[in-house]
Amino acid sequence: MELQLSTWPEVEEYLKRSKLIVIPIGSMEQHGPTGLIGTDAICPEVIAHKAGDISGVMVGPTFSVGVAQHHMSFSGSLCLRPSTMIAAMNDWANALAHHGFTKLVWFNGHGGNIATINAAFSEFYHLRNYAPANNGERVRCTLRNWWDLQGIAELCAKLYPEGHGQHATASEVAVTYSQYPERQRNDPLTPKIAPVRAPFSDAADYREKYPDGRIGSDPSLARAEDGALIVETAARSLVEEMQGLEA
Amino acid sequence: MELQLSTWPEVEEYLKRSKLIVIPIGSMEQHGPTGLIGTDAICPEVIAHKAGDISGVMVGPTFSVGVAQHHMSFSGSLCLRPSTMIAAMNDWANALAHHGFTKLVWFNGHGGNIATINAAFSEFYHLRNYAPANNGERVRCTLRNWWDLQGIAELCAKLYPEGHGQHATASEVAVTYSQYPERQRNDPLTPKIAPVRAPFSDAADYREKYPDGRIGSDPSLARAEDGALIVETAARSLVEEMQGLEA
Amino acid sequence: MELQLSTWPEVEEYLKRSKLIVIPIGSMEQHGPTGLIGTDAICPEVIAHKAGDISGVMVGPTFSVGVAQHHMSFSGSLCLRPSTMIAAMNDWANALAHHGFTKLVWFNGHGGNIATINAAFSEFYHLRNYAPANNGERVRCTLRNWWDLQGIAELCAKLYPEGHGQHATASEVAVTYSQYPERQRNDPLTPKIAPVRAPFSDAADYREKYPDGRIGSDPSLARAEDGALIVETAARSLVEEMQGLEA
Amino acid sequence: MELQLSTWPEVEEYLKRSKLIVIPIGSMEQHGPTGLIGTDAICPEVIAHKAGDISGVMVGPTFSVGVAQHHMSFSGSLCLRPSTMIAAMNDWANALAHHGFTKLVWFNGHGGNIATINAAFSEFYHLRNYAPANNGERVRCTLRNWWDLQGIAELCAKLYPEGHGQHATASEVAVTYSQYPERQRNDPLTPKIAPVRAPFSDAADYREKYPDGRIGSDPSLARAEDGALIVETAARSLVEEMQGLEA
Amino acid sequence: MELQLSTWPEVEEYLKRSKLIVIPIGSMEQHGPTGLIGTDAICPEVIAHKAGDISGVMVGPTFSVGVAQHHMSFSGSLCLRPSTMIAAMNDWANALAHHGFTKLVWFNGHGGNIATINAAFSEFYHLRNYAPANNGERVRCTLRNWWDLQGIAELCAKLYPEGHGQHATASEVAVTYSQYPERQRNDPLTPKIAPVRAPFSDAADYREKYPDGRIGSDPSLARAEDGALIVETAARSLVEEMQGLEA
Amino acid sequence: MELQLSTWPEVEEYLKRSKLIVIPIGSMEQHGPTGLIGTDAICPEVIAHKAGDISGVMVGPTFSVGVAQHHMSFSGSLCLRPSTMIAAMNDWANALAHHGFTKLVWFNGHGGNIATINAAFSEFYHLRNYAPANNGERVRCTLRNWWDLQGIAELCAKLYPEGHGQHATASEVAVTYSQYPERQRNDPLTPKIAPVRAPFSDAADYREKYPDGRIGSDPSLARAEDGALIVETAARSLVEEMQGLEA
Ligand code: NI
Ligand code: NI
Ligand code: NI
Ligand code: NI
Ligand code: NI
Ligand code: NI
Repeated sequence: MELQLSTWPEVEEYLKRSKLIVIPIGSMEQHGPTGLIGTDAICPEVIAHKAGDISGVMVGPTFSVGVAQHHMSFSGSLCLRPSTMIAAMNDWANALAHHGFTKLVWFNGHGGNIATINAAFSEFYHLRNYAPANNGERVRCTLRNWWDLQGIAELCAKLYPEGHGQHATASEVAVTYSQYPERQRNDPLTPKIAPVRAPFSDAADYREKYPDGRIGSDPSLARAEDGALIVETAARSLVEEMQGLEA
Repeated sequence: MELQLSTWPEVEEYLKRSKLIVIPIGSMEQHGPTGLIGTDAICPEVIAHKAGDISGVMVGPTFSVGVAQHHMSFSGSLCLRPSTMIAAMNDWANALAHHGFTKLVWFNGHGGNIATINAAFSEFYHLRNYAPANNGERVRCTLRNWWDLQGIAELCAKLYPEGHGQHATASEVAVTYSQYPERQRNDPLTPKIAPVRAPFSDAADYREKYPDGRIGSDPSLARAEDGALIVETAARSLVEEMQGLEA
Repeated sequence: MELQLSTWPEVEEYLKRSKLIVIPIGSMEQHGPTGLIGTDAICPEVIAHKAGDISGVMVGPTFSVGVAQHHMSFSGSLCLRPSTMIAAMNDWANALAHHGFTKLVWFNGHGGNIATINAAFSEFYHLRNYAPANNGERVRCTLRNWWDLQGIAELCAKLYPEGHGQHATASEVAVTYSQYPERQRNDPLTPKIAPVRAPFSDAADYREKYPDGRIGSDPSLARAEDGALIVETAARSLVEEMQGLEA
Repeated sequence: MELQLSTWPEVEEYLKRSKLIVIPIGSMEQHGPTGLIGTDAICPEVIAHKAGDISGVMVGPTFSVGVAQHHMSFSGSLCLRPSTMIAAMNDWANALAHHGFTKLVWFNGHGGNIATINAAFSEFYHLRNYAPANNGERVRCTLRNWWDLQGIAELCAKLYPEGHGQHATASEVAVTYSQYPERQRNDPLTPKIAPVRAPFSDAADYREKYPDGRIGSDPSLARAEDGALIVETAARSLVEEMQGLEA
Repeated sequence: MELQLSTWPEVEEYLKRSKLIVIPIGSMEQHGPTGLIGTDAICPEVIAHKAGDISGVMVGPTFSVGVAQHHMSFSGSLCLRPSTMIAAMNDWANALAHHGFTKLVWFNGHGGNIATINAAFSEFYHLRNYAPANNGERVRCTLRNWWDLQGIAELCAKLYPEGHGQHATASEVAVTYSQYPERQRNDPLTPKIAPVRAPFSDAADYREKYPDGRIGSDPSLARAEDGALIVETAARSLVEEMQGLEA
Repeated sequence: MELQLSTWPEVEEYLKRSKLIVIPIGSMEQHGPTGLIGTDAICPEVIAHKAGDISGVMVGPTFSVGVAQHHMSFSGSLCLRPSTMIAAMNDWANALAHHGFTKLVWFNGHGGNIATINAAFSEFYHLRNYAPANNGERVRCTLRNWWDLQGIAELCAKLYPEGHGQHATASEVAVTYSQYPERQRNDPLTPKIAPVRAPFSDAADYREKYPDGRIGSDPSLARAEDGALIVETAARSLVEEMQGLEA
């Protein structure tokens, strides 16, 4: 069930049986020469929608632009200041809490968002502790990265014993290809497996260390059918976890 | 051409031939008993993507949650504080300007966003006037509401001589049905045409005046095929306008 | 009745019979070679004070600096960032609401303020919806531009069949001359009627398009006696509208 | 010379001979049973305008609402959050600096503003130190309270050997009566001289300690003709100081 | 009693007998060629801790970085924007108020902090007036500069009849030497007594006027044993004042 | 070398040989019935100072209050909103960068700070990418938690094979006892080893799950001599890491 494809009476109805909502949260940023800029938004969105189809859980709109300062030297990358993202996530959370949602699962597709998402949760809990809005019911925010779901690491290791990588990974690229098969690309990559170097800091430093944007990955391994399998596996794990939270 | 479905080298390439990007901007808010909460995001998104398909213009990710304070008494509506929206829009605009986009067309689906979008433009121009980032090239933000495009008002008047309305309009609901035909609903509406009353102020006032959320509309008139026609017409008008801006 | 010329017991007394206050809101910005920088603050102030004299309605201090980023290439123009203006207007509104005013009429003299004023209203309603301050009584903000008052457009069309214009208009300049006759100027203007061009964006763009600051106007038509008539007409219309709001 | 009554070419001309501007800054707050809410804005405004008439110095619009949290238990008092006031003052200062003003004299009428004005100066200097806007010329902000001008303390001591007081003082009330003689009031005050107690903290505390709003004063001593003398004396001192700053 | 050296049950116990806490607040900024950058934090910290030892009053952690924009041209000086400091002080104050502290004594070591501290108090009172957090008990913030305590001015005048000065004073340097005797320095200073000039504005102006950082002082007079006497005297005065506040 | 115990010429001298500074960063929050509220600030401070003594590296003042929203139901805990902490850390970082420090090592003692510290780094890099202040040299922020230093995990496992825990750990309490032996406490704890439960969310949830504040730990195991050993080990590891960064 998608919030954006629901009517308000349907949401009202849903809230009688569940207070849980899954909010895909991603980023717009370079994903190497062959990966899509929307990769980190598309992955959690596709998995969450599949999970919604399976289980009927409510899925919110995708929070699609995150904190990607280190990718800003590659054309097309967008970035929120972390303080802006904290403000925006709190606006979303307060609105959802206002309607009675009490279990907000932020389903994340971008490692660079993790810190700011957690900071936003602290801001939310802290302000709400002083001034519990509306009915004052306890609201819980949960962060879940799609690649941490049960079964995903094993699956990726099996699919890509080498060259899975850390950014523009074979698995995330495969997920996007499964959703947008027409966007699949077969450009040769040089080197085939991108290097892994010392941690980066700012955008200039990142580009110097990773000139084509990839870290440690060979996304030419990505196949749409593998992506579909990853989505299926992730969606089932997510459903199971949501059922745990509902209990 | 969609930013989120492009690679960074494709964006870099695009920027050699055009500096223009269309950014759909909408809202998550109730649209009456039968309209979708995402209506105001879906409409500009669908039209912009169609325009992108026709013309090759770059279309950014959809800025999907806007200022909808007056809809907050209906389940599922989300809302950014205007000051948050100004901050977020400026983050997007600064990132795009950093990459060399100089014509940012915010393609809007929600009347309640217009004030804040224009305020965000002023904030952007004012700060950039004092401290022109990067290369200092002039960047122009343009607001375009989809319903104001050439030919749309006439088409709606023809399609819905009565009951088009002001919120949860027949035309916007038709556009969403054309995109999501499975979400079409045939619930009887009472009254068939919603009332139009004195201007509303806050969320409580809105709900008192418009108890089912509609203003002046009869969205039961909405047909998917009409929606498709509206999308087609709007996309062609948008393309033409963009060509004017490119010139 | 002017708030700044009242004592606190007088305000307390006033609040027993009315909850309405009119707040003139303007801008400090160039108004062409012969118009005053304070024009947009002076016009609503003069009209509101006259309306206060006629009817006894409370008139607040003038919010005199607004959003005028596009005029910043002309000496003496001031500008608030829209986010600052939203914060300041909310401070004013919260203070007035704290004392029991529930009908806040922002009486505007500057087109460039409209977007930010409406954004500020949304911010006010939204935050108050979550945490209704004090007694929680519903507070309503209204925006009224002086040039939109009943009878003004007709009067201006009659007074200035040609050359009324869009910025540094004959009518607004006439209003300032009626209040400050010693500031009347007779400098020849070239061209006599300023051009109207494509919409402007930032300050540099405005100055390029409108090198002397005027848009479409011939303020040499402005006469103090016409200004007095405009003020009189506008004040009477404002009083009538306020009586409507009071009812 | 008043900024709001000048044209932009006049300001441009002025800047060729002087970079100095005086900005009256006050407050809207109770001033006892007989004093005007606008007293602290009116006093610096009247004195500055007189000084402008004498000397030709540029006088900006009055920053009329300040920090008056402790007066908020009296009807009609307004208050900016200090953080809002810092933002707004920086917007004004940056705009003036943009045009080439380098000597900004904030001419103050409210003791409660002093802390925030000085904090705003620090914010301005600090940010400008990191990123000197525009031409990078050094800009200096000066705070001057009207009651600290040469000759004022002596004059007040002579005029009001007893009952001058600390808030709703005889002298400030006299200045307002000199400007608005029709607003003079003769209500009996009880006690004739208001008490002086331990320092106040918040609005409730202030009202408990000073139930009619006055501190230590007997404003029934205020006479319009004394006010005129104070204005004259203060204006001449201000002119002399400004000449010192110009040198 | 130090908050940071207490357990939470000890704080809970303390709050049964007292609601008062002393919070040392200082700055990190140059103090001339021989004074420590932490001088303004160390002085109130040492005195407050001594007062805590004598009387058992609770002493909070030291708020060690303040507003020192004018010292930024000297290596090692730090500075908060005033608006940041207001936010941070309000976070501290709200947390303390949440636990039941109602008498917050900010014990200051830096003249440049005074304005922002007072602005922060106004922000705190104002917001709390609208939305009294938690139990709504009245909370009072007090600012006390250590050099204003009973007996200090006299003692300094006696110890340093000449060369005490205004910045990098003999007395503050002596206090730091009493605490950190190994940091005492005997560098010759030129001139022996630093000049006093016209008021400074920004960092560049300060450095031009006071090239080695001192204002009017000869810190070579500072002796650790004098510092110990100052600390002793100040601590006893502070204890006495706190007893007055407790009464 | 401590910044707060240095003079500005000493800092200037230091910057000729190194651009690195270590900034201890902690929290004020409950650490169980026997642990000190300042534990998370004391640990990194003590270790960093020891490392500074050994190696001469510059150590900044301790950023002593962090994000501890989940501890707010225990008396004495303080908390910054994450957005405030981001602002304050950026102020510190900009000031240090202004003086020429380019390697800022934030040496952390509180797990709850990690997210906000990383968010603050992103804010810093992002803003600096658009507008590189001053000389534009690249500045790198590094986060290092003391418990992650080489050798610490092994040492703790050896010292406390059971009951080390996750909050109010035996090791962190031992470090504070080594520094403040007089604050050692021998209260019996019930249960001896605190429970570990499902992840907590807000302050009320934390207190319900962990009624005395500890998570999984038996801090009665803490011995001052063990603490000294931990400090020594950590300081040597820190020095080694800093030498790596300097290289
Ligand atoms: Ni990714
Ligand atoms: Ni709509
Ligand atoms: Ni105008
Ligand atoms: Ni006054
Ligand atoms: Ni000092
Ligand atoms: Ni800890």
